[in-house]
Amino acid sequence: MKQSIVTLDMEGVLTPEIWISVAQKTGIPELRRTTRDEPDYDKLMRHRLAILDARGITLSQIQSVIASLAPLPGAAQFIRDLRESLHVQVVILSDTFEQFADPLVKQLNWPALLCHRLLVRNDKITGYQLRLPDQKRRAVEAFKSLNYKVIAAGDSFNDTTMLAAADHGILFRAPDNIVAQFPQFPSVREYSDLLAQIRSRLG
Amino acid sequence: MKQSIVTLDMEGVLTPEIWISVAQKTGIPELRRTTRDEPDYDKLMRHRLAILDARGITLSQIQSVIASLAPLPGAAQFIRDLRESLHVQVVILSDTFEQFADPLVKQLNWPALLCHRLLVRNDKITGYQLRLPDQKRRAVEAFKSLNYKVIAAGDSFNDTTMLAAADHGILFRAPDNIVAQFPQFPSVREYSDLLAQIRSRLG
Repeated sequence: MKQSIVTLDMEGVLTPEIWISVAQKTGIPELRRTTRDEPDYDKLMRHRLAILDARGITLSQIQSVIASLAPLPGAAQFIRDLRESLHVQVVILSDTFEQFADPLVKQLNWPALLCHRLLVRNDKITGYQLRLPDQKRRAVEAFKSLNYKVIAAGDSFNDTTMLAAADHGILFRAPDNIVAQFPQFPSVREYSDLLAQIRSRLG
Repeated sequence: MKQSIVTLDMEGVLTPEIWISVAQKTGIPELRRTTRDEPDYDKLMRHRLAILDARGITLSQIQSVIASLAPLPGAAQFIRDLRESLHVQVVILSDTFEQFADPLVKQLNWPALLCHRLLVRNDKITGYQLRLPDQKRRAVEAFKSLNYKVIAAGDSFNDTTMLAAADHGILFRAPDNIVAQFPQFPSVREYSDLLAQIRSRLG
């Protein structure tokens, strides 16, 4: 009977995709490019930062856009249910940046968030700093080394190593190609079903 | 410039001492014994559980007592300041049990809590289960392995290995003998001073 930690991807699972929302709200469609279009993450990020630089868009301006976003409908209640009904610890593992995530994490009532950080000078984003390669998987392994059962949920390729490392991995609102490629993970689309999946795996 | 996690002891730092409060509220002074009186933790816990058993006190009854407690004055605001002003992650490392901590952690707005668990059958506490020996130190080491700078604060002997393992250890409202025995750790008594200590150590 182990104690449990639930680790969750953020974008697509609890919140909208941040860059896509920023592209929509700023009217800059080039910012919609994601790792599906450009698999080289560093190239993608340098492309994004060059666009922001060319247009003179500051961190504060992007944060204002993000602050106008809301978590996905039902996400805040889902976090509440995990904490107050299932009595498990909740940690978000995301490849976003802390300066982007905070306005959304606040609306989820501040679950712990392990992510990366932007480099900023005078409100201008000058670069980014990945805290750790494959950080989601390594965080899961760290919690397992602390004798926790880890139950992980995510929707993307970059979540699958975390799902595989966890005691139980669950796909949530994953695209069809991910669901087809990873049949070993149960796949659900509603928070009530995700909650039931997690509940059934608690110690 | 590393990202930072702040790890905090709970009882004495953010909340009252739970067993002492339970002893007061239930009028059972034998429950006041702590590790200062009985250094053998297992013996102490078996003593406590035997008293609860003899008096027919259920987990629900103790939880009601704990739910009537409040965090220390200023503790909830301190957590808010860490999250919203300093933008750091907050994790409580406590040797309490999750069934006891929840009513207090809720009032602190649910910071992540790594602790232990009571064994319960039909609302009767039948035993306890330590998740891991020296769990505070090992959690600090795990967060460091994830490339976080760890800033830790605590008040007791059982916090000192965590303080030593952290990048920066700070004593908060520690008794004089601890302050004297561990001069390598700065020692503060007010949340504003603890916040300033933490702020000065961020990357």
